Amino acid sequence: MTSLKNYLIIAASETDADMYYATRFLAPDPFIFMQIRGRKHLLMSDLEVDRARTQSSVHQVHSLSRLAKEFMARKKTRPGYLDLIEHFAKKNRVRRFTVPENFPLAMADRLRKRGLRLDPKPDPFFTERTLKTKFEVHAVASAIRRVEKAVGRAVATLRQSIIRKGKLYYHGELLTSESLRRQINLDLMADGLVGSHAIVSCGKHAVDPHDEGSGPLYANQSIIMDIFPRDTKTRYHADFTRTVVRGKASPRLKQMYAAVKHGQDIAFKMIRHGAEGSRIHKAIHQYFESLGFKTGVIKGRMQGFFHGTGHGLGLDIHEQPSISPRHDILKAGHVVTVEPGLYYEGLGGVRLEDVVLVTKTGCINLTQYPKFLEI
Amino acid sequence: MTSLKNYLIIAASETDADMYYATRFLAPDPFIFMQIRGRKHLLMSDLEVDRARTQSSVHQVHSLSRLAKEFMARKKTRPGYLDLIEHFAKKNRVRRFTVPENFPLAMADRLRKRGLRLDPKPDPFFTERTLKTKFEVHAVASAIRRVEKAVGRAVATLRQSIIRKGKLYYHGELLTSESLRRQINLDLMADGLVGSHAIVSCGKHAVDPHDEGSGPLYANQSIIMDIFPRDTKTRYHADFTRTVVRGKASPRLKQMYAAVKHGQDIAFKMIRHGAEGSRIHKAIHQYFESLGFKTGVIKGRMQGFFHGTGHGLGLDIHEQPSISPRHDILKAGHVVTVEPGLYYEGLGGVRLEDVVLVTKTGCINLTQYPKFLEI
Repeated sequence: MTSLKNYLIIAASETDADMYYATRFLAPDPFIFMQIRGRKHLLMSDLEVDRARTQSSVHQVHSLSRLAKEFMARKKTRPGYLDLIEHFAKKNRVRRFTVPENFPLAMADRLRKRGLRLDPKPDPFFTERTLKTKFEVHAVASAIRRVEKAVGRAVATLRQSIIRKGKLYYHGELLTSESLRRQINLDLMADGLVGSHAIVSCGKHAVDPHDEGSGPLYANQSIIMDIFPRDTKTRYHADFTRTVVRGKASPRLKQMYAAVKHGQDIAFKMIRHGAEGSRIHKAIHQYFESLGFKTGVIKGRMQGFFHGTGHGLGLDIHEQPSISPRHDILKAGHVVTVEPGLYYEGLGGVRLEDVVLVTKTGCINLTQYPKFLEI
Repeated sequence: MTSLKNYLIIAASETDADMYYATRFLAPDPFIFMQIRGRKHLLMSDLEVDRARTQSSVHQVHSLSRLAKEFMARKKTRPGYLDLIEHFAKKNRVRRFTVPENFPLAMADRLRKRGLRLDPKPDPFFTERTLKTKFEVHAVASAIRRVEKAVGRAVATLRQSIIRKGKLYYHGELLTSESLRRQINLDLMADGLVGSHAIVSCGKHAVDPHDEGSGPLYANQSIIMDIFPRDTKTRYHADFTRTVVRGKASPRLKQMYAAVKHGQDIAFKMIRHGAEGSRIHKAIHQYFESLGFKTGVIKGRMQGFFHGTGHGLGLDIHEQPSISPRHDILKAGHVVTVEPGLYYEGLGGVRLEDVVLVTKTGCINLTQYPKFLEI
């Protein structure tokens, strides 16, 4: 079913997932996409026009320099970029476009001055982008499989490490967040996945969920590995987190781990077509509170469970829907992360993250890697 | 010298270089930056507020949930995201902001409805971002050094390859665009650089400047290696291209190579503070034409020299200024690529790319790798 709205996107598909989704054409610089009465058009520079014709999934690729010649023949003046957009829209008898929320303001102001009407559509721009096809589910699952392999190797490295004065050594070298991250990133790259700043954080660093970690890895402290690379071929992401302790975890850390694991189970049980993200998030939050794991500012910093439970995953690492205080409704076909966590100064951080496919009656876990704390 | 304009950016610093430049804080989701009377502010979610306080370079980091409490105490109603932006702006007695060209339209429409004035500023948003500091020049040069190492290894692989029925074999394995790209990407990753789709293209693929290459690498045909990774620490880019032939190049290919190399020399001589990019581009274009290397649509596809001569390089892989038909003026402190190329069906492609620092009297080449065709 093709929407009767006309769409305009001006963006670089390498950074804009909607543009890539609309065209399946990858380019580093912004280019012009229009969908007019159901037909998809690209307006491309000389540099990209031939590649777009071969590689993109649109109906028609137009050469900007050819449009410029057309324009000059009529108007006897050299057109600018905006002239060409206006010219092409007019030629196709369109004066009104639906554009993405993030459509560039300067361009919009100038096009509106010329009398084009631009209506930003709230995200998701392509609703169908949130509902994953079999191919897309497979692409995500395949990326997760390879992350699990790399994490398996990282866990083996930790397990084989020797503890000396509380620090970990592997083959005589001090193990650090940096060195383990490097091993993981190299394994991923060899397997067709690109990740740059995977999180490998330990001890006090792991108390901040987005601290990517630095310095020595310590025994008996929690180590969070949160890996979220992109498949270089399909461009879909994996997102994966495990928390481990090399050596012995304190009783309180074990309780935190058990709580987070059960928090995931709460979500797994509640997730299905029609479920409301905010209710799932709240249920986990309340469960944590019931165990005494409070959330809020403690000693001047955020502690407890102060991030969302999950988010959509696909061409973007964070996409709709959200399992958080926002009131998103889950639908069959959504692929979402489930990643509760607890973070306390002096105790460390615990986060576990799986990715599930929402179905009519529940969810299917696409992540297979086992969950264990002490190694 | 601090600008007296007030700035507003709402973007994710991981994809928006201006946001990273303004804050030196890296986050995957959009956040709010305001510069008010010279003071830089961040408005952050609970998840990022503490990390922003430690890692960002701004004057003050504000907690959105704290602002929300403030708002609720006064207005007795729960604020939305836009309420908080408006509240903070009012509190600081600002009603007018300069915003980037790419400021998200939907947000702008809504803020303007509330009476805020938003003026998009033409790129570059931070003019000083185009003028590189010593640190920034060093960051780019250091990334190039490591790319040269990886390319050196790739050239060694090609040189040591065995030619069998026109194809290249290394240690018994068929050499392909994919396998050589993989080797390069792994070497880069091991050296702290992340590149995903380096171009390693051969023969007919190399006729399209942005074709990343696929399939077997052939003897006696041009192989273009265009490598443009980001340093994971500094976030600055390298950009580097060499063209080689394993075996013998045809006389015409040798002429193309010599022309492109001399094209670079034309640029090196013309580049200095005050030079106009379009004149440099035109000079190379005319030189190519004078040798009979024409540019335009030939047999239904673009051939010749149909991309720009160069572009600024830094936190973005393509930034201002441009050495192309656009009329950008070069300034001392700009770091730009010099990358003419020639592409003809049946002959293949040749591109050479160095990066130079523009100075008052000329330019300094930051690229050191030698230029040779046959290996």
